[in-house]
Amino acid sequence: MDRLTLDALLDAVAAGQVTPIEAAERLEHLPFADLAYARVDTHRLLRTGLPEVVYAPGKTLQQIRGIAGTLLASPGGPLLITRAGRDVFETVRPLAPEAMYSELGRTIVLRAEVGAPLGSVGVVTAGTSDLPVAEEAAVTLEAASAKVERIADVGVAGLHRLLAVSDRIRAHDALIVVAGMEGALPSLVGGMVACPVIAVPTSVGYGSSFGGLAALLAMLNSCAPGVAVVNIDNGFGAAALAMRMLRARAPG
Amino acid sequence: MDRLTLDALLDAVAAGQVTPIEAAERLEHLPFADLAYARVDTHRLLRTGLPEVVYAPGKTLQQIRGIAGTLLASPGGPLLITRAGRDVFETVRPLAPEAMYSELGRTIVLRAEVGAPLGSVGVVTAGTSDLPVAEEAAVTLEAASAKVERIADVGVAGLHRLLAVSDRIRAHDALIVVAGMEGALPSLVGGMVACPVIAVPTSVGYGSSFGGLAALLAMLNSCAPGVAVVNIDNGFGAAALAMRMLRARAPG
Amino acid sequence: MDRLTLDALLDAVAAGQVTPIEAAERLEHLPFADLAYARVDTHRLLRTGLPEVVYAPGKTLQQIRGIAGTLLASPGGPLLITRAGRDVFETVRPLAPEAMYSELGRTIVLRAEVGAPLGSVGVVTAGTSDLPVAEEAAVTLEAASAKVERIADVGVAGLHRLLAVSDRIRAHDALIVVAGMEGALPSLVGGMVACPVIAVPTSVGYGSSFGGLAALLAMLNSCAPGVAVVNIDNGFGAAALAMRMLRARAPG
Amino acid sequence: MDRLTLDALLDAVAAGQVTPIEAAERLEHLPFADLAYARVDTHRLLRTGLPEVVYAPGKTLQQIRGIAGTLLASPGGPLLITRAGRDVFETVRPLAPEAMYSELGRTIVLRAEVGAPLGSVGVVTAGTSDLPVAEEAAVTLEAASAKVERIADVGVAGLHRLLAVSDRIRAHDALIVVAGMEGALPSLVGGMVACPVIAVPTSVGYGSSFGGLAALLAMLNSCAPGVAVVNIDNGFGAAALAMRMLRARAPG
Amino acid sequence: MDRLTLDALLDAVAAGQVTPIEAAERLEHLPFADLAYARVDTHRLLRTGLPEVVYAPGKTLQQIRGIAGTLLASPGGPLLITRAGRDVFETVRPLAPEAMYSELGRTIVLRAEVGAPLGSVGVVTAGTSDLPVAEEAAVTLEAASAKVERIADVGVAGLHRLLAVSDRIRAHDALIVVAGMEGALPSLVGGMVACPVIAVPTSVGYGSSFGGLAALLAMLNSCAPGVAVVNIDNGFGAAALAMRMLRARAPG
Amino acid sequence: MDRLTLDALLDAVAAGQVTPIEAAERLEHLPFADLAYARVDTHRLLRTGLPEVVYAPGKTLQQIRGIAGTLLASPGGPLLITRAGRDVFETVRPLAPEAMYSELGRTIVLRAEVGAPLGSVGVVTAGTSDLPVAEEAAVTLEAASAKVERIADVGVAGLHRLLAVSDRIRAHDALIVVAGMEGALPSLVGGMVACPVIAVPTSVGYGSSFGGLAALLAMLNSCAPGVAVVNIDNGFGAAALAMRMLRARAPG
Amino acid sequence: MDRLTLDALLDAVAAGQVTPIEAAERLEHLPFADLAYARVDTHRLLRTGLPEVVYAPGKTLQQIRGIAGTLLASPGGPLLITRAGRDVFETVRPLAPEAMYSELGRTIVLRAEVGAPLGSVGVVTAGTSDLPVAEEAAVTLEAASAKVERIADVGVAGLHRLLAVSDRIRAHDALIVVAGMEGALPSLVGGMVACPVIAVPTSVGYGSSFGGLAALLAMLNSCAPGVAVVNIDNGFGAAALAMRMLRARAPG
Amino acid sequence: MDRLTLDALLDAVAAGQVTPIEAAERLEHLPFADLAYARVDTHRLLRTGLPEVVYAPGKTLQQIRGIAGTLLASPGGPLLITRAGRDVFETVRPLAPEAMYSELGRTIVLRAEVGAPLGSVGVVTAGTSDLPVAEEAAVTLEAASAKVERIADVGVAGLHRLLAVSDRIRAHDALIVVAGMEGALPSLVGGMVACPVIAVPTSVGYGSSFGGLAALLAMLNSCAPGVAVVNIDNGFGAAALAMRMLRARAPG
Repeated sequence: MDRLTLDALLDAVAAGQVTPIEAAERLEHLPFADLAYARVDTHRLLRTGLPEVVYAPGKTLQQIRGIAGTLLASPGGPLLITRAGRDVFETVRPLAPEAMYSELGRTIVLRAEVGAPLGSVGVVTAGTSDLPVAEEAAVTLEAASAKVERIADVGVAGLHRLLAVSDRIRAHDALIVVAGMEGALPSLVGGMVACPVIAVPTSVGYGSSFGGLAALLAMLNSCAPGVAVVNIDNGFGAAALAMRMLRARAPG
Repeated sequence: MDRLTLDALLDAVAAGQVTPIEAAERLEHLPFADLAYARVDTHRLLRTGLPEVVYAPGKTLQQIRGIAGTLLASPGGPLLITRAGRDVFETVRPLAPEAMYSELGRTIVLRAEVGAPLGSVGVVTAGTSDLPVAEEAAVTLEAASAKVERIADVGVAGLHRLLAVSDRIRAHDALIVVAGMEGALPSLVGGMVACPVIAVPTSVGYGSSFGGLAALLAMLNSCAPGVAVVNIDNGFGAAALAMRMLRARAPG
Repeated sequence: MDRLTLDALLDAVAAGQVTPIEAAERLEHLPFADLAYARVDTHRLLRTGLPEVVYAPGKTLQQIRGIAGTLLASPGGPLLITRAGRDVFETVRPLAPEAMYSELGRTIVLRAEVGAPLGSVGVVTAGTSDLPVAEEAAVTLEAASAKVERIADVGVAGLHRLLAVSDRIRAHDALIVVAGMEGALPSLVGGMVACPVIAVPTSVGYGSSFGGLAALLAMLNSCAPGVAVVNIDNGFGAAALAMRMLRARAPG
Repeated sequence: MDRLTLDALLDAVAAGQVTPIEAAERLEHLPFADLAYARVDTHRLLRTGLPEVVYAPGKTLQQIRGIAGTLLASPGGPLLITRAGRDVFETVRPLAPEAMYSELGRTIVLRAEVGAPLGSVGVVTAGTSDLPVAEEAAVTLEAASAKVERIADVGVAGLHRLLAVSDRIRAHDALIVVAGMEGALPSLVGGMVACPVIAVPTSVGYGSSFGGLAALLAMLNSCAPGVAVVNIDNGFGAAALAMRMLRARAPG
Repeated sequence: MDRLTLDALLDAVAAGQVTPIEAAERLEHLPFADLAYARVDTHRLLRTGLPEVVYAPGKTLQQIRGIAGTLLASPGGPLLITRAGRDVFETVRPLAPEAMYSELGRTIVLRAEVGAPLGSVGVVTAGTSDLPVAEEAAVTLEAASAKVERIADVGVAGLHRLLAVSDRIRAHDALIVVAGMEGALPSLVGGMVACPVIAVPTSVGYGSSFGGLAALLAMLNSCAPGVAVVNIDNGFGAAALAMRMLRARAPG
Repeated sequence: MDRLTLDALLDAVAAGQVTPIEAAERLEHLPFADLAYARVDTHRLLRTGLPEVVYAPGKTLQQIRGIAGTLLASPGGPLLITRAGRDVFETVRPLAPEAMYSELGRTIVLRAEVGAPLGSVGVVTAGTSDLPVAEEAAVTLEAASAKVERIADVGVAGLHRLLAVSDRIRAHDALIVVAGMEGALPSLVGGMVACPVIAVPTSVGYGSSFGGLAALLAMLNSCAPGVAVVNIDNGFGAAALAMRMLRARAPG
Repeated sequence: MDRLTLDALLDAVAAGQVTPIEAAERLEHLPFADLAYARVDTHRLLRTGLPEVVYAPGKTLQQIRGIAGTLLASPGGPLLITRAGRDVFETVRPLAPEAMYSELGRTIVLRAEVGAPLGSVGVVTAGTSDLPVAEEAAVTLEAASAKVERIADVGVAGLHRLLAVSDRIRAHDALIVVAGMEGALPSLVGGMVACPVIAVPTSVGYGSSFGGLAALLAMLNSCAPGVAVVNIDNGFGAAALAMRMLRARAPG
Repeated sequence: MDRLTLDALLDAVAAGQVTPIEAAERLEHLPFADLAYARVDTHRLLRTGLPEVVYAPGKTLQQIRGIAGTLLASPGGPLLITRAGRDVFETVRPLAPEAMYSELGRTIVLRAEVGAPLGSVGVVTAGTSDLPVAEEAAVTLEAASAKVERIADVGVAGLHRLLAVSDRIRAHDALIVVAGMEGALPSLVGGMVACPVIAVPTSVGYGSSFGGLAALLAMLNSCAPGVAVVNIDNGFGAAALAMRMLRARAPG
């Protein structure tokens, strides 16, 4: 709960402009909308500076439409739906005619941010099969008005491919490095650049990759210090982390 | 390998100032010192902006002294030894009379950075038993001239303790949140602030904590988007990640 | 085996009212019905005060109908079928015209308890995707004449949502807290209330959630003391545990 | 945060008896004491009705004494230190002359509750090696004025031992069932009684017991519905859960 | 390699009745038939006294028919196909008109043993959902002329069901006990009988049963000494183990 | 509970020779002795035909002496203490002057069975490091009057060593095969003999042996049908299983 | 980056034949083709002597065709697509009319090597169900002009089958041994031959095989020294490793 | 069993030079020495071309001396003891005065091979803490007359260190690459060279390295094709694998 808001409210109570009962109610009911099946957090942007997001799996089409509609009804920043099939897109499109769907990233952008770009992020992938996860990150960042450069298929088995793009990799404010299998790429990139490196393990692989566990463990044990790790296949989370960094970097 | 350096070297070759053989040798031999048992990377600061660090376990006292001496011999930034007992400190102290030892964080600062602080980091712990890991992070950051505030024992079972410091938590450029057991604190903090949150799982706990695995998994699955995770008990890594962020934030 | 029944039977033998052979047979054959593929426990309610339940997976429709019919044939308390699809409902509906099916909770109530409510239980979920598991618990409790309040989507990333319902959460005799992903909600609730908290991890999540393992471990390692944990997605088990508590609480 | 307290405070602000600044400070600073290395929660009893506890591992003797002293300084209920060696006992004994140490349970009772017993709890163990964990639970309950009966070594390989105590087992308001190895005892007990059953897996065993994992999984998968599970070797947690149940059961 | 056969062959070589080259070839080519994709072991019965079996998964219908046909072509004992769908049955039925298919056990009996029963085996299941695995064991035993009694649904949550059949359980030469979920039944049975107990964990369960791992670990950690464990869902293996015991028991 | 005993007791009640109250008490109190910390099962031999055993770890010397003394006080069969150091032996030796201690097997034989051997068991090890586990099995069997042959170090990497003893291996009523590392030996032996094969995985190995897990999984997945598996390092359990088989085999 | 190429390029710069800018560009852009979604490594053969391969899963048909077309456009060695369904074959067939598809091995050979065989490899399988993985290896080797002998179904449960082919097994330069379930075959073969043994665990099995983990762990813990292990089901990787060995063996 | 020997023996039998009984005995008793606790394989070198090795852990000093003495008594190739402390060295030194002990590699060379080197192997480590495992490999290879070059501390976080030695890395017949933590180095090296790469994961690391599991999984999932993996910390195994390759490479 925002201290400033709390102070203001208490001032108003002290000034007799707000009754204590009203104050308690306001504290309880303001910053979300109760849809019975969901408590839509309409103040997340204010609090965390992050895009609103609806994670589609496990929700009915009706629930997704209800949550999305509520979020669109109040002004705000970027709004996305992740892990969404085309059926979800068809369901929510009437709510936002300008909505866009990324087939590759399985991500819907219902509302994008308008404004000057805060910074630039390089989204680097080890292999072609990692692209869907990378695209979820890239689409999220673009919806939040970040500048994104996609650098694909520079995995460690052909080192010259990575070295060839080393200048481009060093030109960003933050890097998102997406890799499955042995997940070694973030260690290499982490040793080459000074900016924050966000490592995203993917479930690309088979056998003893155990659904991305091998890549996840490799990234957590990176010998390059200062590598941030997020959940397996979590492109959105990597983008959100990059947004936090860019926001922290911006003046004010 | 730095593109600028490469271009300069190639220019020098083209101008006949450097022979091709010399150029190849320089490329191969310059940026580290070969001690037979270690190849000391004397350019890491240049490349990544991060402190030099010697991870003590598995190395003999003699090897640690050799590596530390080599690093001290060339000018540079902060230099630390982590996971170090007092015997290590006694061994390396003659090399750097101003060296300091943190008993709690088991960390030796052989050389600290001098300069204006780049930003401030809050180091938050869930419980008293998490303090050693937090201290490794705090000592590292301070050696690199960051401003650090320690906020201890605000775990989720007594929520009012966290709410009471919410203003202090929101006053930093980045947060390092250290927690064992169920590892829930980063999720809460992540929902309260806009700055980057670095989650450090600790091995505090027993039974089904499985040496910190429970906290690690919880942090990776955080419902608060944009939480960075590092290895279990990896206070140094969290500090290095925070340094990357502060550096990226600084002008130039 | 009930000591009272045993004493009575031995008295009858001593009194010559029952022959030893009859006594042995009675001991063996009374409290269940043998259907060859199932030994239907017709005395569970008497012994444990819990609803009868048929767990549908791995059983044929024919077996489910046979077991349900046997249980309905003897008087008793509430009778449910869990993890049941609509095909199961169509199969058993002829046996109990007043049967009800919860699509969301995939639970069939074949017979509900009639009587005064023994107490009230709050069923709290962290996210919308956790609702099916919560509904299995709620339907079970309602069939056993408990009062249930559903409180949805108060996960820890938006703490104000939880604080806003703190009064409602404190108004119950027991709480069932359902959460996937990092499973942090029971720790918070456990620190806010005095009544028993039953934590249900769900398989909601992906990647390193490992089918609910992350949430399960988090709940087992809760720093809030006195949190009860049940199996992943086990809404029925949580309800049964709450029933035991309410029964123990009731006079007599 | 207590709604009643919040309302009262807001009323006082509205009445001009408390200034807004004072109110905000009171909200932040009251319910704990900040010792730098710990934020001692002095209101836990009020909020959760549970004993105060200091978990000793990972804390220095000095920290333990500091925390214990702070808790003893304000009036309150039972106060314990768990997983404590005799050195811890020697350290804190000067603070509370009447302190008692259970060698078997490795538990220190610094302050016990005075008052009428709220109910009775049976603490049942599968084997002799499970006794230390059971004792941690029993000592905790007794310190909180619950009545405890210890029933030892009734594991499932000699079923008659369990049947012989079936009456005693059924005579309690709640049961704590402690078992290592295959962890089957709670399933049996759960099928015999109506009261809540709290299952505590222990690390007793070897090889594929994997430090108590086998028993933990068995208990989570119990076919007896309504069995509560806590962490491996967590005797204190089981006692705290039983306390919640007994308190909920008490009138008012 | 059979010592008797070896001696006989060497005698024949010494006697000049067999040339060394022929002997070497005979040693290499006799006891199996090479189908290119399979080396059909036609002497397993002789060596191990066990039924021939074809494990269907991962083999094409053509391969299964080829292997089955080869085995049927040479005289021998019982011959089965396990984990077989109805399509497999349709494929092999022309080879053996008297073949039988157990839908429940997904097992085909291509050839059954004729002869006096060697002994009797009780096949006990904890729940109705465990029946398919039990049936695989029962059908295998019956094909090998063992006497089988099926005792279903005597899981530990209703102990009286097990006690009621304790006489029947004690009447066999060996017991196969099949259980999923917490897998406790073999421990109980092992404490009640003197004959060998073969425990078969099943994948019945969900969540933290982890595909039968919970039951498997429980059985391996049984506090009842002398319980044999086989792989999860391995009804055939349990039957084979029982056959070894019965054969060892038979005179000669 | 023994049906014969039950029938006899009921007959006595019917005949007026025993009062019902006495009967109930006798049922409850007879077959074990309650030492407060242990309920010593004095009828296990009668029920299961197995040796009495005290598992030493986690018990105090005093508890072990108490349990051993109680068991020695009533007539019975073989009595052992497993996983016992020399201190345990010194503690219990006064109770049984003829007690013997196997240093290698860490097993104490307090009382051995006198009588004709029931059969013979081969105890086969893959490597020299597996000998302690094998010795626990061998000592147990010998205490129960079985004939034992030890066959050491015939692991699969030197196949000729196994083939050289194939006759000796085939000469037993049952085989116990002890192996660590990849645990392959039971599969080979299982394909060579007709008698029951009991596989004991050991914790011999390092790295990805994970304390014997590799050998355990290998044995559970043996392609030789009918291999019984017991817990890692469980020599006693293997011996108990062999005893069950030998007893079942004996006439009467 | 090839030292020879580097030296030549630097010489050319020194000689004024290449400008520094051209040199830098050549270093960056030569050895791969950038397709946006893939950076096709056209020099892998030169660098590692291994076949080019496209791993199909996770790539669209369009991407596969694009990558394959690019590789075919430059001269080179063998080119394969693995884990490919017939739809992939239909997609790429127009690019290379002589392409061949192995249904069993799910492998497409787009271009095969022409030349004298470098050596011979035995591909040995434990069971019929392991054949698809073995075929992936065999097809890869044949495309690279190695001589391959397939030896199927010589698993350890029928040892004579393996002994019968011992001569054939010893006749190769390297062996690939493919096994699921307990994965024991490589240990046996490793003890019989002097040439390198490459062990391939397969996911053949069920229950506690855990998708090939049991076989993988067994192979890593092989008591036969010098056994190479690759990922579960990784037939291609085994073939690539064999190729490295054959190449190293060839003169020059 | 060697086919040539078998043929020769059979010829001798046919010729009447050896009786059948003698032949059978010779087959059984020749190629090892039975020490009761060990069956010393005196023909391993002949069969597999590998050094003899005694793995010390779990063996008594007496057993180690016995085995070593037996192996020294018959002529042969190199003989080593691995994982050996200085006490083992003191015990066996009298047997072989020229024995050498590597403190770093914890390896004893009892007998070294004399002869021309068969080839050269590069032993590459990622970090200084990996040196002990690398040394076990290097000492083994040198004892078998291979040429070894040690290349230390070229881990991926400072890529220029690896590139600087790329020529040296490419100059060997085989490479052993030793790495802990994220285990990425073998993937990089595998993409740079044509010779076989043997990856050795080490237990260097902490937290989620899980004793080397992270590095092991990374190496198994290497995107560089044709990387051989051995057990965690298994330096000897890597050397044995390299020996197999060098032997296969040598003419004859």
